[in-house]
Amino acid sequence: MTQVHITDTILRDAHQSLIATRLRTEDMIPACERLDRAGYWSLEVWGGATFDACLRFLKEDPWERLRKLREALPNTRLQMLLRGQNLLGYRHYADDVVRDFVACAAGNGIDVFRIFDALNDLRNVKTAIEAVKHAGKHAQGAISYTQSPVHTVEQFVRQAKQLRKLGCDSLVVKDMAGLLTPFNTAELFAALTDAVDCPVHLHTHATSGQAEMCHLKAIENGCRHIDTAISAFAGGTSHAPTEAMVAALANTPYDTGLDLGLIQEIGFYFREVRKKYHQFESEYTGVDTRVLSSQLPGGMISNLVNQLREQGALDRFGAVLAEIPRVREDLGYPPLVTPSSQIVGTQAVLNVITGERYKTITNEVKMYFQGRYGRAPGRVNPVVRRQAIGNQETITQRPADLLPPEMDRLRREAGEFAHTEEDVLTVAMFPEIGAEFLKQRAESTLQPEPLLPPAPPQREAAAPRA
Amino acid sequence: MTQVHITDTILRDAHQSLIATRLRTEDMIPACERLDRAGYWSLEVWGGATFDACLRFLKEDPWERLRKLREALPNTRLQMLLRGQNLLGYRHYADDVVRDFVACAAGNGIDVFRIFDALNDLRNVKTAIEAVKHAGKHAQGAISYTQSPVHTVEQFVRQAKQLRKLGCDSLVVKDMAGLLTPFNTAELFAALTDAVDCPVHLHTHATSGQAEMCHLKAIENGCRHIDTAISAFAGGTSHAPTEAMVAALANTPYDTGLDLGLIQEIGFYFREVRKKYHQFESEYTGVDTRVLSSQLPGGMISNLVNQLREQGALDRFGAVLAEIPRVREDLGYPPLVTPSSQIVGTQAVLNVITGERYKTITNEVKMYFQGRYGRAPGRVNPVVRRQAIGNQETITQRPADLLPPEMDRLRREAGEFAHTEEDVLTVAMFPEIGAEFLKQRAESTLQPEPLLPPAPPQREAAAPRA
Ligand SMILES: [Co+2]
Ligand SMILES: [Co+2]
Repeated sequence: MTQVHITDTILRDAHQSLIATRLRTEDMIPACERLDRAGYWSLEVWGGATFDACLRFLKEDPWERLRKLREALPNTRLQMLLRGQNLLGYRHYADDVVRDFVACAAGNGIDVFRIFDALNDLRNVKTAIEAVKHAGKHAQGAISYTQSPVHTVEQFVRQAKQLRKLGCDSLVVKDMAGLLTPFNTAELFAALTDAVDCPVHLHTHATSGQAEMCHLKAIENGCRHIDTAISAFAGGTSHAPTEAMVAALANTPYDTGLDLGLIQEIGFYFREVRKKYHQFESEYTGVDTRVLSSQLPGGMISNLVNQLREQGALDRFGAVLAEIPRVREDLGYPPLVTPSSQIVGTQAVLNVITGERYKTITNEVKMYFQGRYGRAPGRVNPVVRRQAIGNQETITQRPADLLPPEMDRLRREAGEFAHTEEDVLTVAMFPEIGAEFLKQRAESTLQPEPLLPPAPPQREAAAPRA
Repeated sequence: MTQVHITDTILRDAHQSLIATRLRTEDMIPACERLDRAGYWSLEVWGGATFDACLRFLKEDPWERLRKLREALPNTRLQMLLRGQNLLGYRHYADDVVRDFVACAAGNGIDVFRIFDALNDLRNVKTAIEAVKHAGKHAQGAISYTQSPVHTVEQFVRQAKQLRKLGCDSLVVKDMAGLLTPFNTAELFAALTDAVDCPVHLHTHATSGQAEMCHLKAIENGCRHIDTAISAFAGGTSHAPTEAMVAALANTPYDTGLDLGLIQEIGFYFREVRKKYHQFESEYTGVDTRVLSSQLPGGMISNLVNQLREQGALDRFGAVLAEIPRVREDLGYPPLVTPSSQIVGTQAVLNVITGERYKTITNEVKMYFQGRYGRAPGRVNPVVRRQAIGNQETITQRPADLLPPEMDRLRREAGEFAHTEEDVLTVAMFPEIGAEFLKQRAESTLQPEPLLPPAPPQREAAAPRA
């Protein structure tokens, strides 16, 4: 039982991290025969920003993509990332929507649901886990990894045990920003794999150049499932390269059993594919160890830069970077992942630009203090709390308990172009762009955003012998 | 004594590996104040292909570069890579040239001499080691790492002990192709650090994505000195990123003591610098695990492609790749590094293109069988040997023993434009381009190869929230 199993993120997180989620289904399908033969534990194919990008930029029906991938990958588990009670949208949905969405995703081909909550409030993942088990699928509970005075190994172990009790078939440490270093990974996995009787996967990003080392130390401490990306879309803000990890473990007790030659071929295919998307390459995707001190995920830094540029305040970037950890502390140390990364980032910008901390307070921060996103991980700053919401009580129930069933309403409001339950869910997730998509589909006017012509090929430079 | 020390290759191997050795002194100097403050064990600044590239492409006097770096880096050990009896050229030199070259390099600023021989024939590094000790400098003996039936851990341990006996102050495992994987690194370093009473450095390349993991396992097995490259020129055919390794080891018993903030600044500087050299970027510098089976260093693959293209035989590339290990076996498994990589590669091309193995045999292969490069690591194929050199005896003495002193002759032949001993050595290393360089210098007509104008900046693509 020491074999290591691989989840490849090439069809989801890898291109989300490196080319703004733009990989098209037409470029996935030709690789599927080989991907399906390679022997992966699973392929992550859906969720995160893919649903959004399909509707907004690629003008692809995300459900249709899922069905095509299911057909092209008959022998491999298909995996998705689900934001707990947020599903794939940016608000809390009522439980009936969660159940309906999970049933539809399962029905269209998802085998493994990775479920997380930005605050690690397990009340926000409970309904989704139940729905996955009801659909007879694999429920994977995620620990949103972060570092703070209240995020101790003991706390993560408690969370792991609770997720297991909620019915999860496996767990994952979801290190979305790439904060783990090899020796703290070793400590964390030793504790987690000792505490729970199910597999604990590792999902980490290569942003600060630690991913391969973290995988290695996790494996030496009981981890048997790691997330990697085919080398053509690996490294930097993406993941460790699949080929490298397969080669590192080959002929050891941890051998993955994957055929290196076959996955190399997949890598060469995607190397060519990537050229087609050169307009989405960013220079902010290389190794950057600043994340280890700032804790900011890659996407958040470029968001901040854009916000500041719009307000002509780019010179305050350093001040905002310094303000973010203070706002995070005031909010009781939420992990920085959607939506908390935006909540913290926007308030930090305001605190700097207005010249007075919390002079202006966003609605999201008010809702946060009201408990409408869930429970803060640590103690919130009572002074800031009073500034934000006065003497209002914080709600103590599960936020979704305040939401009446809404599927009937959503079905009614989905409009004339929604023909299926999947269409209704599309509009439910993205009311404006979802409805617009369905309308254009009906009118046959869907137009994916254009791709620029190929960049000229690079020459080999004459080199002295070395 | 568990602190880990760093040698940064940013000024030598990193740009040699990624932009064909083109980094100019003018782009090095502005980083030197910070590099000198960072607390590196050493900076690799000279040797390998830098001497050649300075003369051939950059029209810089390599000795002048060394003196400028020495002045700008007063507090840090400067390190060079020396090809044993080949020095920085492509033939064996007589002992008096070796002694003179080492004395001049030491006099101009080199503190640490890393000395290797392509065949690991220690007779080819002996004079250089003695000369370094005579100059009062640090002699580092290299093990050219390769994998074959005759390259066992025991054999490498024997070589390490012999290098130590020859007077080396430290040793290095020089894995020029990036063949090491973490678990064989662990085994090798456990044995080496147990067997010798001096530091054993690790120099490996990130070609196949193993470098960070190899460093980690080496460190856990007694290694205290690793070679890295500032992130802007790290990864792929270069080395593990300095910032990543410093961060990985921070706050552990292996803490490097380097200031992460300071080396991040150096990284941002070189990130900008790299853009200037975009014309030398190659698409063959990413992670490629094929090297683990082919054993071909990155530079060798592009050389082979060029050779085959010139002969209109690119379609035989696969056949040549298959032939290389067979030629290498016939030659007794030389490590593939200059000059053995060229010797093996060119013969493999001939064996494929002529349609008959060893129908045509290169002069270099004949010299190899004559023993003129030194002793083959393993048993050579006697049939091929007879085809190459008939019944001629193999020389059994050290190849340089056949060479009479030659400095006097080199001084006479260096020409009117050679004013110093350094100039004489420049012509000795590179007779044609060295003499041409000195002539142009005298005529003030030195013209570095032109750089293309900057590439247009990359835009940030609009991204959905993730
Ligand atoms: Co991720
Ligand atoms: Co090297």
